[in-house]
Amino acid sequence: MPRHPWDDDKLHEECGVFGVIGVTDASNFVALGLHALQHRGQEAGGIVCHRPDHGFNSARRFGYVRDNFTSQDVMETLPGPLAIGHVRYSTTGSKGSTAIRDVQPFFGEFSMGGAALAHNGNITNADALRRELIERGSIFQSSSDSECIIHLMARSLQKDIPDRMEDALRRVEGAFSVVAMTRTKLIGVRDPLGVRPLVLGKVADGWCLSSETCALDIIGAEFVREVEPGEMVVITDQGVDSRFPFRRRNSRFCIFEHVYFSRPDSIIGGRSVYETRRQIGVELAREAPVEADLVCPVPDSGTPAAIGFSQESGIPYAMGIIRNQYMGRTFIEPTEQIRNMGVRLKLNVNRALIKGKRVILVDDSVVRGTTSRKIKEMILDAGAAEVHFRIASPPTAWPCFYGVDTPQREKLLAATMSEEEMREHLAVDSLKFISLDGLYRAVGEAEGRKDDCPQFCDACFSGEYPVEPSDMIEKGFELKAAE
Amino acid sequence: MPRHPWDDDKLHEECGVFGVIGVTDASNFVALGLHALQHRGQEAGGIVCHRPDHGFNSARRFGYVRDNFTSQDVMETLPGPLAIGHVRYSTTGSKGSTAIRDVQPFFGEFSMGGAALAHNGNITNADALRRELIERGSIFQSSSDSECIIHLMARSLQKDIPDRMEDALRRVEGAFSVVAMTRTKLIGVRDPLGVRPLVLGKVADGWCLSSETCALDIIGAEFVREVEPGEMVVITDQGVDSRFPFRRRNSRFCIFEHVYFSRPDSIIGGRSVYETRRQIGVELAREAPVEADLVCPVPDSGTPAAIGFSQESGIPYAMGIIRNQYMGRTFIEPTEQIRNMGVRLKLNVNRALIKGKRVILVDDSVVRGTTSRKIKEMILDAGAAEVHFRIASPPTAWPCFYGVDTPQREKLLAATMSEEEMREHLAVDSLKFISLDGLYRAVGEAEGRKDDCPQFCDACFSGEYPVEPSDMIEKGFELKAAE
Amino acid sequence: MPRHPWDDDKLHEECGVFGVIGVTDASNFVALGLHALQHRGQEAGGIVCHRPDHGFNSARRFGYVRDNFTSQDVMETLPGPLAIGHVRYSTTGSKGSTAIRDVQPFFGEFSMGGAALAHNGNITNADALRRELIERGSIFQSSSDSECIIHLMARSLQKDIPDRMEDALRRVEGAFSVVAMTRTKLIGVRDPLGVRPLVLGKVADGWCLSSETCALDIIGAEFVREVEPGEMVVITDQGVDSRFPFRRRNSRFCIFEHVYFSRPDSIIGGRSVYETRRQIGVELAREAPVEADLVCPVPDSGTPAAIGFSQESGIPYAMGIIRNQYMGRTFIEPTEQIRNMGVRLKLNVNRALIKGKRVILVDDSVVRGTTSRKIKEMILDAGAAEVHFRIASPPTAWPCFYGVDTPQREKLLAATMSEEEMREHLAVDSLKFISLDGLYRAVGEAEGRKDDCPQFCDACFSGEYPVEPSDMIEKGFELKAAE
Amino acid sequence: MPRHPWDDDKLHEECGVFGVIGVTDASNFVALGLHALQHRGQEAGGIVCHRPDHGFNSARRFGYVRDNFTSQDVMETLPGPLAIGHVRYSTTGSKGSTAIRDVQPFFGEFSMGGAALAHNGNITNADALRRELIERGSIFQSSSDSECIIHLMARSLQKDIPDRMEDALRRVEGAFSVVAMTRTKLIGVRDPLGVRPLVLGKVADGWCLSSETCALDIIGAEFVREVEPGEMVVITDQGVDSRFPFRRRNSRFCIFEHVYFSRPDSIIGGRSVYETRRQIGVELAREAPVEADLVCPVPDSGTPAAIGFSQESGIPYAMGIIRNQYMGRTFIEPTEQIRNMGVRLKLNVNRALIKGKRVILVDDSVVRGTTSRKIKEMILDAGAAEVHFRIASPPTAWPCFYGVDTPQREKLLAATMSEEEMREHLAVDSLKFISLDGLYRAVGEAEGRKDDCPQFCDACFSGEYPVEPSDMIEKGFELKAAE
Repeated sequence: MPRHPWDDDKLHEECGVFGVIGVTDASNFVALGLHALQHRGQEAGGIVCHRPDHGFNSARRFGYVRDNFTSQDVMETLPGPLAIGHVRYSTTGSKGSTAIRDVQPFFGEFSMGGAALAHNGNITNADALRRELIERGSIFQSSSDSECIIHLMARSLQKDIPDRMEDALRRVEGAFSVVAMTRTKLIGVRDPLGVRPLVLGKVADGWCLSSETCALDIIGAEFVREVEPGEMVVITDQGVDSRFPFRRRNSRFCIFEHVYFSRPDSIIGGRSVYETRRQIGVELAREAPVEADLVCPVPDSGTPAAIGFSQESGIPYAMGIIRNQYMGRTFIEPTEQIRNMGVRLKLNVNRALIKGKRVILVDDSVVRGTTSRKIKEMILDAGAAEVHFRIASPPTAWPCFYGVDTPQREKLLAATMSEEEMREHLAVDSLKFISLDGLYRAVGEAEGRKDDCPQFCDACFSGEYPVEPSDMIEKGFELKAAE
Repeated sequence: MPRHPWDDDKLHEECGVFGVIGVTDASNFVALGLHALQHRGQEAGGIVCHRPDHGFNSARRFGYVRDNFTSQDVMETLPGPLAIGHVRYSTTGSKGSTAIRDVQPFFGEFSMGGAALAHNGNITNADALRRELIERGSIFQSSSDSECIIHLMARSLQKDIPDRMEDALRRVEGAFSVVAMTRTKLIGVRDPLGVRPLVLGKVADGWCLSSETCALDIIGAEFVREVEPGEMVVITDQGVDSRFPFRRRNSRFCIFEHVYFSRPDSIIGGRSVYETRRQIGVELAREAPVEADLVCPVPDSGTPAAIGFSQESGIPYAMGIIRNQYMGRTFIEPTEQIRNMGVRLKLNVNRALIKGKRVILVDDSVVRGTTSRKIKEMILDAGAAEVHFRIASPPTAWPCFYGVDTPQREKLLAATMSEEEMREHLAVDSLKFISLDGLYRAVGEAEGRKDDCPQFCDACFSGEYPVEPSDMIEKGFELKAAE
Repeated sequence: MPRHPWDDDKLHEECGVFGVIGVTDASNFVALGLHALQHRGQEAGGIVCHRPDHGFNSARRFGYVRDNFTSQDVMETLPGPLAIGHVRYSTTGSKGSTAIRDVQPFFGEFSMGGAALAHNGNITNADALRRELIERGSIFQSSSDSECIIHLMARSLQKDIPDRMEDALRRVEGAFSVVAMTRTKLIGVRDPLGVRPLVLGKVADGWCLSSETCALDIIGAEFVREVEPGEMVVITDQGVDSRFPFRRRNSRFCIFEHVYFSRPDSIIGGRSVYETRRQIGVELAREAPVEADLVCPVPDSGTPAAIGFSQESGIPYAMGIIRNQYMGRTFIEPTEQIRNMGVRLKLNVNRALIKGKRVILVDDSVVRGTTSRKIKEMILDAGAAEVHFRIASPPTAWPCFYGVDTPQREKLLAATMSEEEMREHLAVDSLKFISLDGLYRAVGEAEGRKDDCPQFCDACFSGEYPVEPSDMIEKGFELKAAE
Repeated sequence: MPRHPWDDDKLHEECGVFGVIGVTDASNFVALGLHALQHRGQEAGGIVCHRPDHGFNSARRFGYVRDNFTSQDVMETLPGPLAIGHVRYSTTGSKGSTAIRDVQPFFGEFSMGGAALAHNGNITNADALRRELIERGSIFQSSSDSECIIHLMARSLQKDIPDRMEDALRRVEGAFSVVAMTRTKLIGVRDPLGVRPLVLGKVADGWCLSSETCALDIIGAEFVREVEPGEMVVITDQGVDSRFPFRRRNSRFCIFEHVYFSRPDSIIGGRSVYETRRQIGVELAREAPVEADLVCPVPDSGTPAAIGFSQESGIPYAMGIIRNQYMGRTFIEPTEQIRNMGVRLKLNVNRALIKGKRVILVDDSVVRGTTSRKIKEMILDAGAAEVHFRIASPPTAWPCFYGVDTPQREKLLAATMSEEEMREHLAVDSLKFISLDGLYRAVGEAEGRKDDCPQFCDACFSGEYPVEPSDMIEKGFELKAAE
């Protein structure tokens, strides 16, 4: 299953969620919504639905939505006006040998009826919760942190499911955007900090919930508003009911959603993601100008920032690197070694264009740095005169514990090297990252970052974690020393 | 199997060919080469190889190269230092229910040994040749026109296979770039007009032949030169031997290879395809300027021309349409009709960007016009103020009979409508195609088209067929009336 | 997936269980054991195993053991010296759309470690137990009655797993032969009546548990003894420990295991199953003699009784009906109706042999009677002079609630018809069932059935249920009226 | 794909053929017919059909008929009132890596229309014919000997297809029962000796041809007669036309069809195959009596002869060996060696029955002897007092070149050992084969074999080849020295 070209060397959003109520064949809508959210999780997907005379039905599959939830055979088993779905990368569940039982939504049968639940985010006290629940006799089906929520709900003394969900989520720490359903209700919740996104849409006579607005577009839904941090919406055929079960806090939305995770055609915080990224390029060109002949994006995620950089700098934009549309990762290497073969399966340098030129390469981030090295080599092999890297995010120096798949801290290039050391490591003519303030400006905070009360979660850049990652600390993770 | 987003509404190159000699595990090279040529044929692929102690082996499969020719299991059955391969769309063979036996390379066992053959192009007298061969007792395995060549070879009185191939190809009319192999030789031939491309490369101690240079890059081969129109190269471990078996004629390379078929990172006629396409955009901006706020490509094939148009016009370039990386074509439509659902699976409009703007959309061609209509609707739905189409090729008014899959003439929008009628049909604010002369200029012919002796095959635009399509005429096709 | 030829018209054993401890690669032994027990459950199979450094691993699959648990790829994921497995028909779980989550063994993680469990039998108070457990916050993964056991174990206050299992099983009513495992123990239990079989074997330096002895033979294990009714054996590398956690009762082994369920090469109660069946034929010949030319078995289950009938009566034994070894069930019926096509896919009459003959057909049982009718028609079509049915079991008039898949009572031919009515319904020259006493004699009870204290469970014949089927009674099932 | 239990150690019939004309959806009949002939070829199957408005269609697949030709999807692609089919073991084509192109029927397009052809038998001068045809320019698609026929037909100067087929078959030596079709005709031919079987049946308003009568039964067809040795029948909607294109010779039907190849419910030469085999057992009991307690068949092919032996000798018949109905061949052997594991997957000894008994084992043939050894060991392991082998055919000392898959002569136990040596090799108490005369008597030749003019082909026993195996002699095979 081919992925983004640089999957090995990117941070990954780990999940996308989608739900719809009040339409005919809700599962078809969910399948389309998940397809539009596939970039948030390519490994597996699941749908649960309900129809009064058929009860709950579900399907969980490894692989792409387009391969699993498109045939009449499968979709006929998923009838009804109410459905939720989930796509995932490998999550905190068993890495490597992920089992199908780790694929969400999770389902539980309670005495007042069944409920299903799909979670985007990560629960930072899941290990402790799991131990406690097992001690009391719960049997876990999966290795996923998200399953804690459904067991907490099963043991709640409340009489109806939304109340049980409140009960459960008040025990949970970390980041969560949850879409859930009962026989008659579609429920959406965001954690008090609103780390992960969740939006509300209107489609025909029904309603939908989605991680991003791009999934509203595919089903022709109207974007109504974002679910607010700390808000729970309970949607029935009577309409949308809003509650705020948690203590209010200042929101800390993930700033990396703007940089890379979200699709460029989504709208976040009232802003076009594409436009924000283009603006990052503009800021970069201001912060770190350099003389050159061409501005080239590292496809595809570097493209909007490269356009912005070109427009601000006046240096022509060009497609110096062409992405293979039929990506693969598993070809057998011919006996004679091909330099950077893995890269060549995904990209090719536009040799005739690059030769003799001073090239600015714009990329969204540097994680391990392995890919950046290979691209630089390909560009030089093609005869470029100079190579300058411009990165549309600050150095990624800290792991994320809120639902993003990051390498261990020691694998992050920026955790162990200064900018100049990284430049030497990559052996390029220059390397510049956008500043944290520059990034905040590009995202619309004209004053930059308020250090005493940051407007976003930027833990991956700053090491400041808005929710203490307690399970990880127990396992030995060391927080940034107070200064 | 997802394809280009507008597959239904594009002309398709029907084949790509690749061959290599003198390397260890030649099939692995061929698999990589075919992967790089996958855009020339996505439906099926095949590889034939030879090793002295294993004889000839082959594998033919439907689907992508990356799915079929990447496992150890398959590739171990394809040993040896000499191999050729082929990727194809559905060709002139049985449409719809294409059989695996139509998948090339074709193989024939002759008294002096076996030979395999892969063909890019189309034989315009194949029906007549087939009738004649059957009459004499040949049994055809496939419905492919290309099989005629191997039967003609089987019946040749010549003693060695290259000579038999000359014999056979002198009976053949039409367009052909052929890669063939015997137990010890790799052979490449282009028809006298050189309609389809074929290039020669050097890799390690061996040689390779490929439809395009982008496939040389993936295996780290050096681009040596194009095989010339009318040339046959016979490559052994002694080196490359060149012959010219046909009567010399002026070459007529397919100009649409520059416009759409070839990959932007390939080099044709010494020119970067990407740069040629950008130059088409420049010419378009000169020929058909218009006031607007944004220049947006129709992804992905319109991108280089859109960049050129933006640079020449000074109107900002923007990604107004975002392509879904996980394309699908088969989702089940929810009961409530979604307008243009098929399009939405592949593209989404960047609504926040487009709203209220005057938008120039740059596309490579208009064939049936069905897709252009849908894109226009999506753009207007998103609130664009004006929509102007600029097309990087002249109106496509005639079918191709030289190895390109085109609709019947009556399905071509430009065959029945004037430019203004097309504009009305598409209901856009303006619609302009580049002129034939403008296209020739962009391709490097500063003087434009020499009408008495055109430098390219442009039959799809001009209706002037450099080789008479005799089978088609027999079936009732009417040539353009002489003026 | 082809099954026994008369699957539609037979009672089915619903499960087979197998476990092994103290051997290298225990899963390979379990795979072989399950293969030998495949007749007890053809729909799906599962294996759970444990190795200290790999923890628990499992695989659950639909289809035959030979297709799922034979490849290196699968078996390498199942390492360790301790493993259990299960094969099943559709059980009391969701009929029709059985989900993979209904496939056993079931697994639970407890605070003192994990345990897995495979169950042959049926829990007659499962509905009530499930309601109670859900009320307390347990979440069920499956629709299987067997899952109750693992949830009861999760909530037990006992400190080790065998003690928790005792706790759990004392709450359970019905029939159960359970094989379970912890990280270091293999556990086997039979319900107090010992309705379903379970045997203990010795293999190399380890031990195994199996539903039948035929599965000991395939792995070269020595048959040690049957696990006794009401006994729990806990096997570690220290040896076999035996307990009797339940109140002692007289055993009531399922007599139908002798008639049909068990394989003829198994040994039950110290007797060869084959020999018991042959003896049933002998008893039948004594009880219901008839003049005829040939004794033919209905293949394959009628064969041993037919041999016995022939030997006792002196009428020659012959293969009048030949079974197709490549059975199928899904051929498309040609437009012209073929009489009894479904039967013809599985059987063919030996026409040249049957023609003009008086034929005795020996079958093991009559359930719905649909198959018996079709066979009779085929025999008559082939020209038989007379057809006499002799049935190796008494009339099946009552459903089984102890782990056997039986039609509802009203679908059982013998529930609504007398023997003579059945004869008329089948339109045969004569029809005779063995008497209940005759069957008991054949099984070794020289005195026949002790009606005040029957030696076996024969509820399907007698309507006397040794354990009250409480869930079924709640659903409206009516017990036989007391006389 | 499981096969007969002793596939490694049996001779195999290599093909079965079936054809039908004049019915609706002929392919469905062919699928059923091939299913009934599956024992003649389990590796692959193919169907070709014709309907005037759809032309010829075909499907060729590896695996069982029941898995490939039963779905609506496949069968809908095979419409029309006329169809032929073929099942095959690996034939003389490329062993091991059999390609799908070797799967029959073969098809050729001639100037007067297409023809398809399926062949049971073997062409003994195929190598010479192939060389000649290639020299003249024919291109072979397969490595099958049968393809020669269609190329000979393509080159015939005759005007219609049956005449071309006569032309072709007069050049062919060896054994052939051919079923062929044109757009309007169903054709059947047997070689002059009639080595392989072919029968004619009547079904509804149409006709069918089949290798055996058992395939007539499954579709409810009436058995009309055998196609005669040297006869060609040409069937149209006008009826059956018979011709005799070859010089008349005495027929030499394959006697091994009676012993093993044909199904017991087929009728050959007016005799029930089952009854013939039972009679072989009777003859064996007369020729080679022995004192014993039980007569047990080696399942399943030894069963009829064992019944006959028991009836003649008065020694009780018993199922001492039970065959596993769910055969497999690929289980991974547990680390501790299991003796004769391969055998255990297929068979199990009825230990309780065998223990302490003197056992006569009746098998149909001994080829390599490997299986006989393993069975003997299992029987002794189970505690048998004595083991006596009785074999229902004479010693197999010569390979077959007429369409049966036999090991090379040096691998045949009887080629290198006397009966006594074989007994010692197998280490049994006694070993007796039926005599050639005894076999002839059982097949109905009361006088036994006429040595100067044998009534059957018995080359595998006698070394007397009725058609010179010229290709094999060229490759070094040595005929039996004249005495």
